[in-house]
Amino acid sequence: MDIDLMELFNQCTKNATEEELSALESLLLGLHKKQTGQNSSYIGGLLHMERQISEEECILTIPLSSLVNNPLGILHGGITATIIDSAMGTLAASLLPEGFGAVTTQLNVHYLAVGKGDYVTCRATIDHKGTKSMVLSADVFRSDGKKIAQATGSFFIIEKKNVNK
Amino acid sequence: MDIDLMELFNQCTKNATEEELSALESLLLGLHKKQTGQNSSYIGGLLHMERQISEEECILTIPLSSLVNNPLGILHGGITATIIDSAMGTLAASLLPEGFGAVTTQLNVHYLAVGKGDYVTCRATIDHKGTKSMVLSADVFRSDGKKIAQATGSFFIIEKKNVNK
Amino acid sequence: MDIDLMELFNQCTKNATEEELSALESLLLGLHKKQTGQNSSYIGGLLHMERQISEEECILTIPLSSLVNNPLGILHGGITATIIDSAMGTLAASLLPEGFGAVTTQLNVHYLAVGKGDYVTCRATIDHKGTKSMVLSADVFRSDGKKIAQATGSFFIIEKKNVNK
Amino acid sequence: MDIDLMELFNQCTKNATEEELSALESLLLGLHKKQTGQNSSYIGGLLHMERQISEEECILTIPLSSLVNNPLGILHGGITATIIDSAMGTLAASLLPEGFGAVTTQLNVHYLAVGKGDYVTCRATIDHKGTKSMVLSADVFRSDGKKIAQATGSFFIIEKKNVNK
Repeated sequence: MDIDLMELFNQCTKNATEEELSALESLLLGLHKKQTGQNSSYIGGLLHMERQISEEECILTIPLSSLVNNPLGILHGGITATIIDSAMGTLAASLLPEGFGAVTTQLNVHYLAVGKGDYVTCRATIDHKGTKSMVLSADVFRSDGKKIAQATGSFFIIEKKNVNK
Repeated sequence: MDIDLMELFNQCTKNATEEELSALESLLLGLHKKQTGQNSSYIGGLLHMERQISEEECILTIPLSSLVNNPLGILHGGITATIIDSAMGTLAASLLPEGFGAVTTQLNVHYLAVGKGDYVTCRATIDHKGTKSMVLSADVFRSDGKKIAQATGSFFIIEKKNVNK
Repeated sequence: MDIDLMELFNQCTKNATEEELSALESLLLGLHKKQTGQNSSYIGGLLHMERQISEEECILTIPLSSLVNNPLGILHGGITATIIDSAMGTLAASLLPEGFGAVTTQLNVHYLAVGKGDYVTCRATIDHKGTKSMVLSADVFRSDGKKIAQATGSFFIIEKKNVNK
Repeated sequence: MDIDLMELFNQCTKNATEEELSALESLLLGLHKKQTGQNSSYIGGLLHMERQISEEECILTIPLSSLVNNPLGILHGGITATIIDSAMGTLAASLLPEGFGAVTTQLNVHYLAVGKGDYVTCRATIDHKGTKSMVLSADVFRSDGKKIAQATGSFFIIEKKNVNK
């Protein structure tokens, strides 16, 4: 296995552009964050998600680079949705008792401006907490302060042991 | 640069689990797909997106692995949104004349079932094509045929030279 | 009571324009439809809703007039939402066993073209039926065949005796 | 015409229940509000909409009665959508220069609790104002203070002379 990986690694670095080497560095650093438990998912590690959470909000930041861009060279709308879903889901889960989880049932995102600059920050808050479901909101800002997206999401409250059913 | 990368690579492979080595392999293969132009974005390469496009639909498939899972161990809703946005955006762009692009202004996703299995496939179709905007739909299916998500999205038609404004 | 009503009636008809008399006629006819059970709600009667329902779809038609227009003189988006919600809700309820009802938890409408002409027709279909919730779609067409709106909605399945809680 | 109307009126009042007479009274009063210009649309008059508007928000209140209920005996989700669309649309239009209007292109409503009580109040605010489009939010509360719905909507800015195209 390791030998193949080394070959793959060499294939990626040989004749690589600066941008590609930078992308590889970011991926390896991100993978290591998952390995060391700094992030609880590969996605979190690879996106270099940093988060703060309180009872009222979850704030989640990721650095921008060509790694998260769409073919037009701007932040991919799916990555924006990913940090929104992560921030909302993290906050939702934090408000539930042990043994319960929150799964997204619906997500609506308004894209307001182009995602570019050094980083983007998502702030999720809770709007409604029922016995069976929750509704959360989130805003996403870029490093120059401009809001690039706003979203609302619906979450079902489930027992974690039922998550795979 | 290469030396640091090699150190990072060794850091990731040393004492790595099978899952982690498999994740690294997938990332290196994905990066190489972008480098060789098989995919037009890093996201497309890293997710190992394969797509078919016609005038009526864009079909996009990604393999599933722990790389794309959320902390609950199922497909991250943001990744589902990413392939939806990619499939819709690809189809929308394909319907426009040279020099024009389509940017997502709004995306609404209903999550219907847990994403798991070997792969998921997204099929995007066009519902409405106006002079300034378009509306598209998409369904996402997992490898056992179950629909896991359905979505609608709004896109603005822009001149590509204006994309960064 | 009747005397006051008669005074109100006279107030409405005195110096009334043709459009206003026509609106009053439509309201009285609509009210009577509710009184005689042709429609199960005042809204249904006043909008002169006619519906066909099968296991696969609910089709609902309303005539257009100045009564349902917004201040711009075109069909009010809220009325479009009303027939969408009615058609979806009727279909959802029809698919449930005795004693259960469906309440809308989320509704997303894309408005595609101006509502005008003789009437509009909404066709609702079911996309997903789970044990706790359902997702439905609907398209709205005007009398010249043009699609003016498309929508998706989420519904919770509840026991009817719990509806007021 | 008047004779037919009188017959219709008598048909509605003969053997009418208290609820039906009350509904008729509300309709006649509402129609008269449109006739006298207190409301700018029949819908506004018939729903007895009262509104306050400033640069930051539009607040719109309607009384509740069986007239606006669905067959389950609670506020019809379409009426909730109607006051949301009205409040957002009024605020959006108020922010535009003479000759321009705002048309809803997309509306997403989360229904959070049953609509009942004496009245409901909708408060719309502006989230984003671009050159071609706007995004607004709205919350709807019932008279006991409970939030029953929250929504976001997208609006296109158009020249009013183009509204019917």
